[in-house]
Amino acid sequence: MTTNQIVDLARASRLASVSMQSVTDEQKNEALLRIKQVLSERQEEIFKANEADKKTAEEQVKAGKLSASLFKRLDICNGDKFATILSGVSDIVHLPDPTKKVTLATKLDQDLEMYRVTVPVGVLLTIFEARPEVVVNISCLALKSGNAVILKGGKEATQTNAVLAQVIQDALASLPKTNGIPKEAVQIVETREDISALLDLDRYVDLVVPRGSNSLVRYIQNNTRIPVLGHADGICSVYLDKEADITKACRIAVDSKTNYPAACNAAETLLVHASLLEGNDKFAKVATALLNANVTLKCEENVRSFLQSTVSADLQAKVVAAVPEDFDTEFLDPIMAVKSVSDVNEAVEHINEHGSKHTDCIVTENEATSDFFTTRVDAAGCYWNASTRFADGFRYGFGAEVGVSTNKTHARGPVGLEGLVIYKYKIRGNGNIAGEYGSGKKQYLHEAIAPENYSI
Amino acid sequence: MTTNQIVDLARASRLASVSMQSVTDEQKNEALLRIKQVLSERQEEIFKANEADKKTAEEQVKAGKLSASLFKRLDICNGDKFATILSGVSDIVHLPDPTKKVTLATKLDQDLEMYRVTVPVGVLLTIFEARPEVVVNISCLALKSGNAVILKGGKEATQTNAVLAQVIQDALASLPKTNGIPKEAVQIVETREDISALLDLDRYVDLVVPRGSNSLVRYIQNNTRIPVLGHADGICSVYLDKEADITKACRIAVDSKTNYPAACNAAETLLVHASLLEGNDKFAKVATALLNANVTLKCEENVRSFLQSTVSADLQAKVVAAVPEDFDTEFLDPIMAVKSVSDVNEAVEHINEHGSKHTDCIVTENEATSDFFTTRVDAAGCYWNASTRFADGFRYGFGAEVGVSTNKTHARGPVGLEGLVIYKYKIRGNGNIAGEYGSGKKQYLHEAIAPENYSI
Repeated sequence: MTTNQIVDLARASRLASVSMQSVTDEQKNEALLRIKQVLSERQEEIFKANEADKKTAEEQVKAGKLSASLFKRLDICNGDKFATILSGVSDIVHLPDPTKKVTLATKLDQDLEMYRVTVPVGVLLTIFEARPEVVVNISCLALKSGNAVILKGGKEATQTNAVLAQVIQDALASLPKTNGIPKEAVQIVETREDISALLDLDRYVDLVVPRGSNSLVRYIQNNTRIPVLGHADGICSVYLDKEADITKACRIAVDSKTNYPAACNAAETLLVHASLLEGNDKFAKVATALLNANVTLKCEENVRSFLQSTVSADLQAKVVAAVPEDFDTEFLDPIMAVKSVSDVNEAVEHINEHGSKHTDCIVTENEATSDFFTTRVDAAGCYWNASTRFADGFRYGFGAEVGVSTNKTHARGPVGLEGLVIYKYKIRGNGNIAGEYGSGKKQYLHEAIAPENYSI
Repeated sequence: MTTNQIVDLARASRLASVSMQSVTDEQKNEALLRIKQVLSERQEEIFKANEADKKTAEEQVKAGKLSASLFKRLDICNGDKFATILSGVSDIVHLPDPTKKVTLATKLDQDLEMYRVTVPVGVLLTIFEARPEVVVNISCLALKSGNAVILKGGKEATQTNAVLAQVIQDALASLPKTNGIPKEAVQIVETREDISALLDLDRYVDLVVPRGSNSLVRYIQNNTRIPVLGHADGICSVYLDKEADITKACRIAVDSKTNYPAACNAAETLLVHASLLEGNDKFAKVATALLNANVTLKCEENVRSFLQSTVSADLQAKVVAAVPEDFDTEFLDPIMAVKSVSDVNEAVEHINEHGSKHTDCIVTENEATSDFFTTRVDAAGCYWNASTRFADGFRYGFGAEVGVSTNKTHARGPVGLEGLVIYKYKIRGNGNIAGEYGSGKKQYLHEAIAPENYSI
């Protein structure tokens, strides 16, 4: 697209987002159910596009230019994948509307009331990689929260993404006139140049939501004034305290690492209190459990020599030496960097210096030590005796997940629909002016208004 | 400072912010009262530095290099200025602690509880212009919300700022060992180069809070990955609807423009429903009130010719022709750009295209029209029959104001202490692992925990 076309597209999104400020939850749900219906009706067309994308991708896999796992994520025809996409739409229908909630109500004076009300952020720009189902998922989350969205998917899924976006737009266009959601509420762009032009348009785009690699997120942060809701790396740690229950330590270390090693909430680093490096019934048991679960342990020297003398010979091959960079690496594989620390404070310092503010866990039976850790570790998730793998919007009970944020502002950790809203202050007056208040004049009341007395 | 020195300074702020996670409200208040005391004790030294800054500035004013209003803002010795700074510290002591609040509590399963708890953002970088009292005000707001802060003031106030920051550091250093707030919680830098280096350190700095010109905010947004809490322009509008009460319209238009024209919440644009351009008892009355209050009206042609035939001859000199840029200008002076619109929708469209998302007001007796306006205008403040000048943290009852944000994320409108906190998720488990949950396995409970049952 030319720059002018991109500006027009972004402006159309902005206008759509204004129209969407007025729509009701019923109208949003009507739109979502219509999208589900049209997706279902046009399954054949969608599958055809997906087959075409897969054919191109297959050749790239053969040529070694695309990974097998990326190819697998491209596929939406196989098994119950498409049915899952459709039922995901229904799930979003049933979530509570995050907008129009009064979060503060203050009587400033007689006849002068202030209400803080949640409203959609406005226009979202989401950039994601291979999975085409994100087109449907993010469009529906955006609509449910009253936002307009501009989508940009991975180039491997270009045809599938285009058809899915077209189907959604057609579904919106077919809504009764009374509905009020324009088809421009969901738009798609295809090239890196389009994104580059959109990142300049802070006038029209309110929030960028990248879902992808660390380098994608950094690239975007480096090239826009628009706020970015993204997560960089997921470098999560498990710290085994001197008062750790070793059974819990084994369960948590193994689950945090092996339940799904490619996830951002999988643990990459294992910190061990030095006192556990004694005998065969403490860290040796945890290490053995990890090694038995096929995890490679990249250990600092003292840990390595301890394990060489304690774990059985057949497991020794997976005990290797760590290099410093291992403690800043998101392995996304059954590999853990292991280091001993002299106390909980050293564990906290290590995590705050090397972690990615995602999710970190302490295993201990001592509540005071746990409090110290969960208060001082600067991460979205600070867990006591629980696997880092719980860091997930569905597991948290949000019903949906926009992504996991390692931001320190706006939305942190697993982000549900609440992360796609902000608020505005509505004041209802009766001709009130500021000049009548002040020293020797009228005073503000600043009384809370009870919900039953809201006039909004 | 060298880049290495800046990195050390930022890292020291980060470490200070970690220590501050554990401090209690009592400890924070102890620190604030100590700061107040030491400021008071060292008033002479502070005034001496301020006199030196003023002397340099006076020469610049004479040479035409500095404005008289900037010079005035530099002065903290005159009248009750210093006493006001000290009483401002006491005011912050009395505000409620915004941290450690549980905003969500969910029982995920037996023995698996999740708490979302407010925590300080971490390390703030605030950049501001002439007023040296901002050093004290922002340091105290940062400390009360548990944040570490790095300050950079205007170069005209270099000596005053340096002494104020030193006094605050000395006050913190003199706290009893039991207090826990390190003196590195407040640090100061002096040059543009220092800022430039800090804007690169997203590893240590969590939020940039610029208080100053539009160009300062844009410069920062263009040069950092760190989130920015700032406001660009304050282009606020007042829309007089066809069903406006003309008495309220006169009061609100005059107050919005003239109560304090240099403030960001002063109105710059007046939109008038075309039907009010009839006779002498509608818009002619509002315009006369504004002109009598010494406001220049920069009018589109139809408005200008209407006023030429309706307002008295002695006021005509202040009725002038508008140029298109007037509707994108923050005058900060007794000047208003005036335009007629054919309906409320055109008013909304104008504001969404030209406004700065700060505060906009509709004057009407029709509630449905007001709802349309306040729902569709994309601004932090959407007012019905009330002056735009109410957009202020103190007037909203926040007790303090960090600034007014025109952001669409994190914090919007007047920002109090709540804008300086974020949250983390704390999970308390008993060795729980994610692999035990799922289809055919354990299910999540997702039950709300009542406050009386919090185990945190």
